[in-house]
Amino acid sequence: MALERIARTARNGFRRSSTGASTRTTEKDMLCERASTRNYCSVPSLESETRSNSLSYLSSISKVNHNRFLSRGISITPNYQFPFAERIVEESDSECNEPKYPGLEATRPGEKPRVVVLGTGWAACRFLKGLDTKVYDVVCISPRNHMVFTPLLASTCVGTLEFRSVAEPVSHIQSAMATSPNSYFYLASCVGLDTGKHEVYCETVSDGGLSHEPYRFKVAYDKLVIAAGAEPLTFGIKGVKEHAFFLRDVNHAQEIRKKLLLNLMLSEHPGISEEERKRILHCVVIGGGPTGVEFSGELSDFIMKDVQERYTHVKDYIKVTLIEANEILSSFDVGLRQYATNHLTKAGVRLMRGVVKEVHPKKIVLNDGTDVPYGLLVWSTGVGPSEFVKKLNLPKSPGGRIGVDGWMRVPSVEDVFALGDCAGFLEQTGRPVLPALAQVAEREGKFLVELFNRIGKQDAGKAFSARDIPLGEQFVYKHLGSMATVGGYKALVDLRQSKDAKGISLAGFLSWFIWRSAYLTRVVSWRNRFYVAVNWATTLVFGRDNSRIG
Amino acid sequence: MALERIARTARNGFRRSSTGASTRTTEKDMLCERASTRNYCSVPSLESETRSNSLSYLSSISKVNHNRFLSRGISITPNYQFPFAERIVEESDSECNEPKYPGLEATRPGEKPRVVVLGTGWAACRFLKGLDTKVYDVVCISPRNHMVFTPLLASTCVGTLEFRSVAEPVSHIQSAMATSPNSYFYLASCVGLDTGKHEVYCETVSDGGLSHEPYRFKVAYDKLVIAAGAEPLTFGIKGVKEHAFFLRDVNHAQEIRKKLLLNLMLSEHPGISEEERKRILHCVVIGGGPTGVEFSGELSDFIMKDVQERYTHVKDYIKVTLIEANEILSSFDVGLRQYATNHLTKAGVRLMRGVVKEVHPKKIVLNDGTDVPYGLLVWSTGVGPSEFVKKLNLPKSPGGRIGVDGWMRVPSVEDVFALGDCAGFLEQTGRPVLPALAQVAEREGKFLVELFNRIGKQDAGKAFSARDIPLGEQFVYKHLGSMATVGGYKALVDLRQSKDAKGISLAGFLSWFIWRSAYLTRVVSWRNRFYVAVNWATTLVFGRDNSRIG
Repeated sequence: MALERIARTARNGFRRSSTGASTRTTEKDMLCERASTRNYCSVPSLESETRSNSLSYLSSISKVNHNRFLSRGISITPNYQFPFAERIVEESDSECNEPKYPGLEATRPGEKPRVVVLGTGWAACRFLKGLDTKVYDVVCISPRNHMVFTPLLASTCVGTLEFRSVAEPVSHIQSAMATSPNSYFYLASCVGLDTGKHEVYCETVSDGGLSHEPYRFKVAYDKLVIAAGAEPLTFGIKGVKEHAFFLRDVNHAQEIRKKLLLNLMLSEHPGISEEERKRILHCVVIGGGPTGVEFSGELSDFIMKDVQERYTHVKDYIKVTLIEANEILSSFDVGLRQYATNHLTKAGVRLMRGVVKEVHPKKIVLNDGTDVPYGLLVWSTGVGPSEFVKKLNLPKSPGGRIGVDGWMRVPSVEDVFALGDCAGFLEQTGRPVLPALAQVAEREGKFLVELFNRIGKQDAGKAFSARDIPLGEQFVYKHLGSMATVGGYKALVDLRQSKDAKGISLAGFLSWFIWRSAYLTRVVSWRNRFYVAVNWATTLVFGRDNSRIG
Repeated sequence: MALERIARTARNGFRRSSTGASTRTTEKDMLCERASTRNYCSVPSLESETRSNSLSYLSSISKVNHNRFLSRGISITPNYQFPFAERIVEESDSECNEPKYPGLEATRPGEKPRVVVLGTGWAACRFLKGLDTKVYDVVCISPRNHMVFTPLLASTCVGTLEFRSVAEPVSHIQSAMATSPNSYFYLASCVGLDTGKHEVYCETVSDGGLSHEPYRFKVAYDKLVIAAGAEPLTFGIKGVKEHAFFLRDVNHAQEIRKKLLLNLMLSEHPGISEEERKRILHCVVIGGGPTGVEFSGELSDFIMKDVQERYTHVKDYIKVTLIEANEILSSFDVGLRQYATNHLTKAGVRLMRGVVKEVHPKKIVLNDGTDVPYGLLVWSTGVGPSEFVKKLNLPKSPGGRIGVDGWMRVPSVEDVFALGDCAGFLEQTGRPVLPALAQVAEREGKFLVELFNRIGKQDAGKAFSARDIPLGEQFVYKHLGSMATVGGYKALVDLRQSKDAKGISLAGFLSWFIWRSAYLTRVVSWRNRFYVAVNWATTLVFGRDNSRIG
């Protein structure tokens, strides 16, 4: 079957080349040859794995009712079954030369090579920002048209920052997609991938109220960069997706904010019992990593300042509980952990050891049988491979991410690269899978775009043209340190390079100042730097905003 | 039947007074007397109308599927049937002294009188802002916890202003509701009214994902101010509520913005025909009043500047059409109308005469049979009485608003006042119903709050205590002039006092400057004044924001 498919692809290659420029024939001949000999892999040690992945055809991804997820603030890439998947092959098999589905065809000789980027997170945006658009055309495909400045997301939930201040439109990051004639941004989800034909298959996002079917199209690539991110881990616990909020995207933060303000207002109503009032105002955070700790810190700041002033009727009812199975901030220095624990406890955050067994609409049940009633539940227990990545027929790293080599290449197929949370070093490389951090993703994006710009100038940008080009040094990750705020103008800065290394650790106001400054200079555009500064200043002067919109 | 009810109320009054402070008996005796003699009306000329309204019991309002409306950006007060309506009476009839439903009971002697305000629009917020909280306790009930600075709403749709800059939380406007022990803001809808018992019945708003039933409660008032606003007029045209966007609230503006950006991005996809691309990018505005004209002007600004720069692939496809049955800006001076017409036409807005017959998902059909395909449809043909107002058993003004006298009182019942778009002078007063303008609502709110503060100091704040108090001068509306922007830093200012009077009219950049300054000084808080100024400055420097969130 696999051989049959390869043969079809080969024939298709020939046929398409006859309708295209005649100079393409040689190139396509080469493709056929490679396809038939299954010599897709440039890393010999991976030969065995390659056999089963010689052509990663469209994954059969089952339909997900993503509207329900969206309404809970959970945004995932909609993974429809792509109905054209088989048809593409079938039609190529018939005598019809013109495929029925529209899209961007492969670039012709003389045209700039086309880089297709999936995603608009840290890795994708860092890559996009650095790409030399004199050398490449670029097409970015993502269900989100902006990058989210994730480290500041927790602040937007309580009104310290505006939502817009933490969102950077991709057209600001790489203006070629807005202005260059052959570069585009497509608001769409990738639903399939044919590494043999060098094509991705996409479906436009729908907004629920959309009165038409989603548009479907294909985009041919010379180089593909998969930076589609990861999804929150729920460990299969019942009720998490239905009742908990994640904190990964601006609309998650919006939902949390709406819920928090709604609960504050609902709790004031005269029709509510004491017990119900306590439940509604109980904010539970699951997961004591940096996100969970920062959100708890922001919440306690909000409660200690704004709720005390503006919701005086119910101020004594609102409580925050942070539940963690092990230790909070386990990747941080032990002194910093202690500092965080002390600070959060003093700020009124109840720290609780526990493992969640089930989530119900109004309470969670822990493994030891304890019931914890809640009004707002935020889930931040880390991320894992997305459904999209799981179903891709590509080699995987330990942990199920897309497996890459030291140059971020997917070694079994040609011209495919993966970055950020969706990528991990293959076991054969002997390197550890890097943590899912903005810092890692950003550094990988920077590494790859420099590699791309370098090989692009050596005319290796086109499909199947980079095999004999030296790629230079492999990617080396150097950890610059971790930071987390704990509220009350206090933060932790851990400058050690790894968990067991020695180095400088800071905690307190100075750290908080470093944290704010570091982030302020990292927010991508001057517009947003300016807005973040204005937001922080107005929060200090006027307090947080508490209008509940929508 | 009516007499029977009155008798019940009377008995109930006695019974409640026996459980309350004994000093109340006299007051309740008076109520019984008034109730039995049906002497509720203080304006003798309205006697006949009064008979049928002696007790305005709960209106039987049918259930509305408001979730559907919300998803189209249409927010209305949910008008559920209030299931406790009859039960209140039934239970009073039995020997049970404690009613089962919770809420705020009537104020006792010695307590401050309680003013209940329904709504958070211009009239309600101006009233709330000025209320002397040393004299009154205040309870505000509204499904929205902020005032919307409506004249700037059109600017938020295209990213000139932030959403938050045009929303002012009510707790900023009247801080007593956040801090005073007996003043509250309730995020709820009023679903019923018993003017005899001086009680309103409420239901909390739900956010769709809410896992519990809405809370229901009652609030007893000493004085009631109904400022619940109006609803967009659709003239019963099929498909308007399903497919068109209104522009009355911040979430309407959010929906319009999301749709506009979605359409811009969808139109770039390779899978789209020329015709479909044109349709998607055709923005149609129905109604040539100030809102329609301002929105068209903002859109054309957005297209001429931002779309030209950031959506260069599709910039020649986007078009704006403004459809009006008569003349645009019909209330303005003829010279200004001509100026607006010229300016909009030059800015690329197509002005079209026509009457809409039907609205379909992708096209509207005009009365003359013309089809107008659209991608975005904004409906701004003025407002009319809301379902809530229609079903209230109170006298009505011409046009179906709540009928009031020169002091904004509803004359047939005691201690009930109405303001803003939901109120109109009764025909018997010989005054015209004032237009539904922010200016009118704001002036009425100011008038009434001054009246309240005055009578409050004369100890007439309590229920049934203002009958013999002189209320002073009646309300007189003096039109200060109309303003409207037409885009491109141009505005119209019509300073004539009425349509037929003479006065100064301005058009152009100077007017635009006046317009911006006038609004900047009216935005309620310094925080928002600051934000609006910052927004305008950043739009000038960095261009409009185009991240599509949510």
